[in-house]
Amino acid sequence: MRRLDFTRMSEAEKKTSLERSAVNLAKAIETAREISTLTRSMGLEAVLSFARKYDQYDRDNILVSEEEIAAAGSELTAIQRTAIEKAAENIAKFHQAQKPKSYTIETSPGVVCERVFTPIENVGVYIPGGTAALPSTALMLGIPAKIAGCKRVVLATPAKKKVPPAVLFAAAICGIKEIYAVGGAHAISMLAYGIEEIPKVDKIFGPGNQFVTAAKMLVSTDPKGCAFDMPAGPSEIIIVADKNARPEFIAADFLSQAEHGADSQAILFSDSDEILEKVAVEIEVQKKSLLRQEYINKSLEHSALILTSSIKEAFKSVNYYAPEHLVLHIDNARSYMPMIQNAGSVFLGNYSPESAGDYASGVNHALPTSGFARSFGGVSVESFMKSMTVQELTKDGLAGLSETICTIADIEQLDAHKRAVTIRFEK
Amino acid sequence: MRRLDFTRMSEAEKKTSLERSAVNLAKAIETAREISTLTRSMGLEAVLSFARKYDQYDRDNILVSEEEIAAAGSELTAIQRTAIEKAAENIAKFHQAQKPKSYTIETSPGVVCERVFTPIENVGVYIPGGTAALPSTALMLGIPAKIAGCKRVVLATPAKKKVPPAVLFAAAICGIKEIYAVGGAHAISMLAYGIEEIPKVDKIFGPGNQFVTAAKMLVSTDPKGCAFDMPAGPSEIIIVADKNARPEFIAADFLSQAEHGADSQAILFSDSDEILEKVAVEIEVQKKSLLRQEYINKSLEHSALILTSSIKEAFKSVNYYAPEHLVLHIDNARSYMPMIQNAGSVFLGNYSPESAGDYASGVNHALPTSGFARSFGGVSVESFMKSMTVQELTKDGLAGLSETICTIADIEQLDAHKRAVTIRFEK
Repeated sequence: MRRLDFTRMSEAEKKTSLERSAVNLAKAIETAREISTLTRSMGLEAVLSFARKYDQYDRDNILVSEEEIAAAGSELTAIQRTAIEKAAENIAKFHQAQKPKSYTIETSPGVVCERVFTPIENVGVYIPGGTAALPSTALMLGIPAKIAGCKRVVLATPAKKKVPPAVLFAAAICGIKEIYAVGGAHAISMLAYGIEEIPKVDKIFGPGNQFVTAAKMLVSTDPKGCAFDMPAGPSEIIIVADKNARPEFIAADFLSQAEHGADSQAILFSDSDEILEKVAVEIEVQKKSLLRQEYINKSLEHSALILTSSIKEAFKSVNYYAPEHLVLHIDNARSYMPMIQNAGSVFLGNYSPESAGDYASGVNHALPTSGFARSFGGVSVESFMKSMTVQELTKDGLAGLSETICTIADIEQLDAHKRAVTIRFEK
Repeated sequence: MRRLDFTRMSEAEKKTSLERSAVNLAKAIETAREISTLTRSMGLEAVLSFARKYDQYDRDNILVSEEEIAAAGSELTAIQRTAIEKAAENIAKFHQAQKPKSYTIETSPGVVCERVFTPIENVGVYIPGGTAALPSTALMLGIPAKIAGCKRVVLATPAKKKVPPAVLFAAAICGIKEIYAVGGAHAISMLAYGIEEIPKVDKIFGPGNQFVTAAKMLVSTDPKGCAFDMPAGPSEIIIVADKNARPEFIAADFLSQAEHGADSQAILFSDSDEILEKVAVEIEVQKKSLLRQEYINKSLEHSALILTSSIKEAFKSVNYYAPEHLVLHIDNARSYMPMIQNAGSVFLGNYSPESAGDYASGVNHALPTSGFARSFGGVSVESFMKSMTVQELTKDGLAGLSETICTIADIEQLDAHKRAVTIRFEK
């Protein structure tokens, strides 16, 4: 793991050291394009063939049956069911307040303008497969979709035989009934364009591997495809710690990020060299007892412990990097909030580990990575809705704006725009 | 222009007839990629060379000087200045109400979650060039950026020698001081990546030709690039008219859409064959006196007058098509609002022409095209901001969620996630 001393580095050197490893999606996009073309031309046949190739798919039907969904709860322990329900409750509580409000304003006499919000009718949520079940992702996407009021919520997740019961149980809590046991770029294409009996969706949400991400990007630039939530890159954390911080807590948070994947990145900033040193030792000690050491070791290679001249200086780098997760192990952490410009989700103080937000505090864990926190927020209820504007002018209202409209139409040399106003006042 | 009878067509035939002409961006993307690569490697030199090639650029400096901006007002008539100011006033009134509110919720005892909004620090607004000045676009992008509180708002627009004074005057109203007289894919690349003295922006807004759109898409999928507002396609309108509608008003609205460009599309639905016939005649009569007949004639080739069995049936097609603009020439138009699911901006009644919304009612005219109204709203104050979540747990708060977090971490096989909780309660 890198140890850097920002107090002795130029601004340019600091920036270079914070650059994320380049993700080259070009190859993944080519593969996704081929998969997408075949899925569109051959439909279910292509989807099944890719599922067999990539996921050893061996089911009778890609649609998960009502019986499978209903049985999921009984395959979990009572403690597991309660945990998923408790997490769902907090997530729902936090997201409920996000439902955007319509409003009406009379901007000029007789000119009434409105903004209304409607749910996106058809949405797809993608839950990655891999080593374990991810019920938390199903909740993080399914609950805002439910609150938004989306008419049709489709879930897709790769499976060999069975979709993990925890995912089905979480989906059922969110009222999701249409679940397909397929994943990958073919599942994204299937959702974006529709095949046989499965109608297309209007927007796709959820994380995935590079082929899933590439497929989401591809379909999003095609008017016949569909929108997607946001570009996804490797997961990442920045921790800022002062001299009073607890090295063992910091190390645990650092490692909980590192275990996400080989390409995860964790960065610790501190103005105390002693803290950096202690955390370095703690990381070595703690990681020995963890299961996912292979991922952790790879992740630590591009992680860093960085000394800064002050906490304030650290926040400059935080805003430049725009981390997905930002954890503040600082006395009176809340007072630093005004300094934070770019971050996905912020964790304040010694008892707010990232895993609390990943699962149960109530905030969303589908967050902007790769610096997209400069321009994107995490998934929210609004992500599942869209706004529409409405205007209604009385004859007098239009008359009052007539000169304004006609003058600008003249400047823009759009005389039919002007004519659409003047014709209404002829004779 | 096509005349269609939906009462005699199958659902599949209807859908086919509403398909937009395919926009193939593949070639534009290749060109944009080359331009982008050269802009990144050669900086200003490349930008200037493309500007000379595509826009006969002939200025001393791409940065528009303070003097040029200050002089703009005096190059306009008092009536022109007043029109732009009046439009700005209505747009500001309508957009002010969009500023999103932060909120705090205690989801469980000792678990305080918040959502806060911050402006996107650096934004670029792009104003297309072409035959005439487009001050309205400068207002539609500059005003929400100002209300959002973006620190740096950069405007780019192609110019040979002078940026049109109306655009500079509109930009000045929005407080925009950094204006570059360059456009095209090279301007997008310049804004997205930064060159020499011009730092990069985090998000780019505004319409443009296919190369601008292709460049925006390209940079948006590159973590080193930046986000963009939404995919842009040709402008479009659907008008729904009942038997009491005024054919001359409808024809004028139809033509005001058609004049936007050769690829614009206008569709009229009515349950009255008489109205369709009268509008067809009116279009022929009115278009003779208009300036942009070449565009209009081309646009009418892919436009259509469509008979439906009822107004209600028409709305099914409206929602399927998801138009950028929707104009209702229907008695008691407002009562049809609950039927509208997918549209960018809606115009109710006989005195609400599209040009009112394009310029002066107050709503935004940067709207979703190509069916993206199924998943996108128009540009808003929120488009220039992003949300961030924050959580602060007390020791007891974390203890209360401990079992929930640890149980889900077990299901997801992420033991470092669990460890980050348990370590806080040791000893």
